[in-house]
Amino acid sequence: MIIIGEKINGFIPKTLEAIKAHDEKYIKELATKQAAGRASYIDVCAGVEPAIEHETMEWLIDLVQGTVDTPLCIDSSDPQVIVDMIPRANKEGLINSISLESGKCEIVLPAIAGTNWKVVALTCDDNGIPEDPQVKFEIAKKIVALADQNGIPHDNLLIDPLVTTLATKGDSLVGFNQAVRLIKAAFPDVHITSGLSNISFGMPYRKALNTQFLALAMAAGMDSAIMDPMSADMQATMHAVDALLGNDEYCMNYLEAFREGLFGQN
Amino acid sequence: MIIIGEKINGFIPKTLEAIKAHDEKYIKELATKQAAGRASYIDVCAGVEPAIEHETMEWLIDLVQGTVDTPLCIDSSDPQVIVDMIPRANKEGLINSISLESGKCEIVLPAIAGTNWKVVALTCDDNGIPEDPQVKFEIAKKIVALADQNGIPHDNLLIDPLVTTLATKGDSLVGFNQAVRLIKAAFPDVHITSGLSNISFGMPYRKALNTQFLALAMAAGMDSAIMDPMSADMQATMHAVDALLGNDEYCMNYLEAFREGLFGQN
Repeated sequence: MIIIGEKINGFIPKTLEAIKAHDEKYIKELATKQAAGRASYIDVCAGVEPAIEHETMEWLIDLVQGTVDTPLCIDSSDPQVIVDMIPRANKEGLINSISLESGKCEIVLPAIAGTNWKVVALTCDDNGIPEDPQVKFEIAKKIVALADQNGIPHDNLLIDPLVTTLATKGDSLVGFNQAVRLIKAAFPDVHITSGLSNISFGMPYRKALNTQFLALAMAAGMDSAIMDPMSADMQATMHAVDALLGNDEYCMNYLEAFREGLFGQN
Repeated sequence: MIIIGEKINGFIPKTLEAIKAHDEKYIKELATKQAAGRASYIDVCAGVEPAIEHETMEWLIDLVQGTVDTPLCIDSSDPQVIVDMIPRANKEGLINSISLESGKCEIVLPAIAGTNWKVVALTCDDNGIPEDPQVKFEIAKKIVALADQNGIPHDNLLIDPLVTTLATKGDSLVGFNQAVRLIKAAFPDVHITSGLSNISFGMPYRKALNTQFLALAMAAGMDSAIMDPMSADMQATMHAVDALLGNDEYCMNYLEAFREGLFGQN
């Protein structure tokens, strides 16, 4: 699993507070804990007004990569901010995100052509977020074609089929998993990722739905998640599912993660 | 989901102690709590030496059906004990279990022909427990054929494809799910059940593996489980997965079970 640690994100109120106060200790701790939780990438999203996004992202990037060795996931809705931040990173990481919305692919893909930067691609366009799995797949195909044109290997693409909220759409997971299967069947080397919490919006005891979304999507072929690596519930689910699906020989990762205390302490 | 409450089983050391001591209070509490946990059937297994199995089963059956309205699941490895207990039950329930082992189908199936008793059928025979999903399926086909000969409707059959231990067989769940899909494709009205704890034998933090086995097997088509209905973890997983798979319109069951306190109190 490719784990994208989601905690350093200004859209989380407590993190935004720390960012605005330039609370280095708080941000460093989030970086350290997520690295200990085996994040593959540490997402960095300022979540501040455009006028100060550049300087805030620079501060965050310097702080995080001065604290841990885990590569960054540069996260902004502004493709120009993303491209401007790439030279600031001391190693190749992940970009979050592109989509078919005007300008995104055109600005970001040429900037990472010929590098080993990876990129999250959302299945949406200027018409918004489609619910139909076939439309999600059509958008994914167009994004892969654009990546191909720029010589970006499929292994560097993480497609996010954008799960909707279960409370408003009862076949939310069913449609998501259909999109996952269509994409993986057509492009086996492309990775699939998703945030885990949108699905349970408005429901009680959200962690049951979030963990089981992870389990069922992994069974359909999802091999990455934008998640909280400090959550023992998520770690337990992820490692158990990986072992059960036969992806963890002799359950070595499960046993090691348990011994490290990533889950099972309660 | 058809939930078979597993707690009144003499193979559980604490339950055996209570059975031997004829501790009515303890057994009644297990019955009441499992009924509150929405067990569809309450399993009753004496787990004592053959000489006293009859009288022990009679005592257990009278006690449980004097306490709750939930139908019984009559559980014995001796098909004659099962058949002898059927008239003791005050309503039709479930039998646990038959298989292709000599004598089981021959004794039990004619005894429930023409009734609405349901029966758990294990995919094993006199050669033991097969690991190959295709062999599990072949045994299931033979059991279905014997049920057909006795006029027992498919809806009254719960086939248990006997999951093996993950620690000794890394593709344990993968093979189990293959068997589930083969059986459901051939016999869509037959139910699939399984115990949830064998898979995690020898592993730490077994509840992660047990709950995720439930989740992944449900996604493959399992629609019953022999489980502890008093486990909040199991209830949360089961209800979340049912909602995510689109089997729970408007998440009504999930919301109701949460409100009843079946999960989500921690």
